[in-house]
Amino acid sequence: MEHTRIKELLKSEEFGKHVIVKGWVKTFRNNQFIAINDGSSLNNIQAVVDFENTEEALLKRVTTGAAVRVEGTLVESLGKGQRVEIKVKELTILGDSDPEKFPLQPKKHSLEFLREIAHLRFRTGTFNAVFKVRNALAFAVHQFFNERDFVYMHTPIITGSDAEGAGEIFKVTTFDFDSIPRNEQGQIDYKEDFFGKATNLTVSGQLEGELAAMALGNIYTFGPTFRAENSNTTRHLAEFWMIEPEMAFYELEDNMDLAEDLLKYVIKYALDHCAEEIEFLKSRLLEEEKSKPQNERAELNLVDKLNFVLANNFERVTYTDAIEILKRSKPNQKKQFKYLIDEWGADLQSEHERYLVEKHFKKPVILIDYPREIKSFYMKQNEPDAQGRHTVRAMDILFPGIGEMVGGSQREENLDKLLARMEEVGIPAEEMDWFLDTRRFGTAPHAGFGLGFERLVLFVTGMTNIRDVIPFPRTPNNAEF
Amino acid sequence: MEHTRIKELLKSEEFGKHVIVKGWVKTFRNNQFIAINDGSSLNNIQAVVDFENTEEALLKRVTTGAAVRVEGTLVESLGKGQRVEIKVKELTILGDSDPEKFPLQPKKHSLEFLREIAHLRFRTGTFNAVFKVRNALAFAVHQFFNERDFVYMHTPIITGSDAEGAGEIFKVTTFDFDSIPRNEQGQIDYKEDFFGKATNLTVSGQLEGELAAMALGNIYTFGPTFRAENSNTTRHLAEFWMIEPEMAFYELEDNMDLAEDLLKYVIKYALDHCAEEIEFLKSRLLEEEKSKPQNERAELNLVDKLNFVLANNFERVTYTDAIEILKRSKPNQKKQFKYLIDEWGADLQSEHERYLVEKHFKKPVILIDYPREIKSFYMKQNEPDAQGRHTVRAMDILFPGIGEMVGGSQREENLDKLLARMEEVGIPAEEMDWFLDTRRFGTAPHAGFGLGFERLVLFVTGMTNIRDVIPFPRTPNNAEF
Repeated sequence: MEHTRIKELLKSEEFGKHVIVKGWVKTFRNNQFIAINDGSSLNNIQAVVDFENTEEALLKRVTTGAAVRVEGTLVESLGKGQRVEIKVKELTILGDSDPEKFPLQPKKHSLEFLREIAHLRFRTGTFNAVFKVRNALAFAVHQFFNERDFVYMHTPIITGSDAEGAGEIFKVTTFDFDSIPRNEQGQIDYKEDFFGKATNLTVSGQLEGELAAMALGNIYTFGPTFRAENSNTTRHLAEFWMIEPEMAFYELEDNMDLAEDLLKYVIKYALDHCAEEIEFLKSRLLEEEKSKPQNERAELNLVDKLNFVLANNFERVTYTDAIEILKRSKPNQKKQFKYLIDEWGADLQSEHERYLVEKHFKKPVILIDYPREIKSFYMKQNEPDAQGRHTVRAMDILFPGIGEMVGGSQREENLDKLLARMEEVGIPAEEMDWFLDTRRFGTAPHAGFGLGFERLVLFVTGMTNIRDVIPFPRTPNNAEF
Repeated sequence: MEHTRIKELLKSEEFGKHVIVKGWVKTFRNNQFIAINDGSSLNNIQAVVDFENTEEALLKRVTTGAAVRVEGTLVESLGKGQRVEIKVKELTILGDSDPEKFPLQPKKHSLEFLREIAHLRFRTGTFNAVFKVRNALAFAVHQFFNERDFVYMHTPIITGSDAEGAGEIFKVTTFDFDSIPRNEQGQIDYKEDFFGKATNLTVSGQLEGELAAMALGNIYTFGPTFRAENSNTTRHLAEFWMIEPEMAFYELEDNMDLAEDLLKYVIKYALDHCAEEIEFLKSRLLEEEKSKPQNERAELNLVDKLNFVLANNFERVTYTDAIEILKRSKPNQKKQFKYLIDEWGADLQSEHERYLVEKHFKKPVILIDYPREIKSFYMKQNEPDAQGRHTVRAMDILFPGIGEMVGGSQREENLDKLLARMEEVGIPAEEMDWFLDTRRFGTAPHAGFGLGFERLVLFVTGMTNIRDVIPFPRTPNNAEF
């Protein structure tokens, strides 16, 4: 490799050194100053061309987006905004970029426009920063669990089971849609499909994760999960990445501690390792908010918001207490909530979660002990309270601006209670025999949670649309690239 | 959390300390010695029960697979094979395990049998070791790229494109198979499907990876990929994990260097961090090989084999030279190859790869510059040689016992050459417009490769069936759990 990455050169003090740089032209000013970026840094290096001794035909090809090779001397920069620059000895065009056709010109493009050209948006500063932060967060997740001796498990993507017993799923098949095989009774003959049965894309690795945790102790998954929900919102994707730790011998308190530690660890890692990128995103957000009325702007800037999360304990509140707070709240009294909170048992809507997090507690909140009826069958059942109300050992972590960041629970380890609940909600035990074996052979308390990775990236980058924090978003009617 | 993980206790020197352990019973000898494992280590801790002062009904419940809580004092062990043990003060059964029904008894089970109960096999020593090594290798991959400032990209799982232009793919759909929508011409109406077009599971993240590399510089993917091939072999899975780095401004030499560095780095990491597990797997393999005739046994044990790879440079050979070696080889002369090598242009079969790696060079081999006709359209075309033969800048890394571990190439960056090749092999340019934009706007040399993660785990663990190195294998007619 003959070239040096720009990130290295920008830190270098070796003035006078002969260097080679390869990258893409961001701007070319005065027929003399080329700003070159190779993706390694948000920042460009400036290459200064001796235009009087350079062929005009060559200079004309130095257009935004063109790939160039520059050979020259690293010198101290006299210009503003950079410490070093390259005095060019030799300039080569590796690949042209027709300025009439290249969609990314040196001006501000809207995020909507950039979403249309998602294959090129990586070349902008904003998306360079977003995907560097995403990368840092992913690595931090692995490092956090590695330091704690958790085992990374690749749970299956194609599965015959539907973990939540609900939710819209994607089918996976090799059937020829023009001739779907049928058996003698005229039913679809899944025996003829690739796996010999109906299969779909996983909605969660939790159940398989439990199998591994009940042997290896502490495990986590980090992989893609899928929902075929027809929702076109700024917070939903049909394909998204999820982190799901599962721990044998953990109870709900341990589970909450782990989740809070994890979130603080990865946010701190991003602040420490992506300071430039987060600073850039902070400015972007401040700029964006200028068009909003004062009262809609965020109280804290991005960096302060992240540091605020690190500095404070998450508020741990029972569902029952939360309902009391919401009942007595102004927006409920003044009927400003779309869904008024009348009684215990109501499912919380986004407006209620936001009130609790953003208005009442003003920090991340862990809501626990939800009514059994609004949560999944596998959650550990509490003893009924004095009024005979049934709750489960669920925990949802709510973040300002995001809503639910984490959903988890202690699991029901008692086979009889689990079977009874499955029957109530109509999940056939035969189909889950393998899962139930964990409760048959050496069952034990255990717990786990799911962290939506894109929601984490949203929070840390300050972006507002989830489609802008995953390289190639999949949503209804959109599977481009 | 009141308990301490067994891995910590086994290293501890705090004799006399009061400890609590939770785990599963592996064996219970003489109504006195419980071997307990909590998954944190391959090794068990011994808990010594004062059986004379313990209820018999309780002792009867100490069966293989039961989950127990043990409270007592950490003491120096007088027995053989362990440094420490626990003198039990209090023994509690957390979950029973009916010895008549629990399939894992303290005896040797065949890998075939364990595959049938994949949800329980994590509790065996072999699979504890395999999945610890898998975990270490996965972390090492991330750490390797993180140290080199590569950006981890999550390329899409659901895609409308088929990267290799070939291969059997899985369809992804929300169609109701009982009423597939059709348009006025009677054709299947994919506009009615979730994404508004036909979609499938990705066979490779490479093309999307190229988009990111041509902006961010150096990126890698690490995610699941899929092949709907109906092959029931010990080396194929329908769902497997792949690592695909892609680097702007890399040529074939740089690509080879990176792949060799990566493989050595992760193997060294596993040796350093999973010494106990690899030692255990080495013994398992030696045991297994005892039933084989002498000449079929491996020349090197597992640890020596891994160290051998670290100590030697991979042999870099052109396809053309390899063909000459094969032509002149004994098995070709004696017609022992199933497919005899007659002339240049032949695709290499597994028997040829094995001959080169295991007999001729006796170390990993990087084969480069393959005939254009047997490789993918996107590979960079060499100038035709003196005989007018066309080759491409491909590289396959072949490993002993595994075959192809890595497949990669420098990419064709020239738009006209790429278009011409696509036309020759019948890939419509319209459908790949987004991909071709990388060659339209600032094209540049770049390269990348794919590393099959399960094949790597196979090599490092010494396992022989790929179904034994992924938690829940997906193969034709098998998507259990």
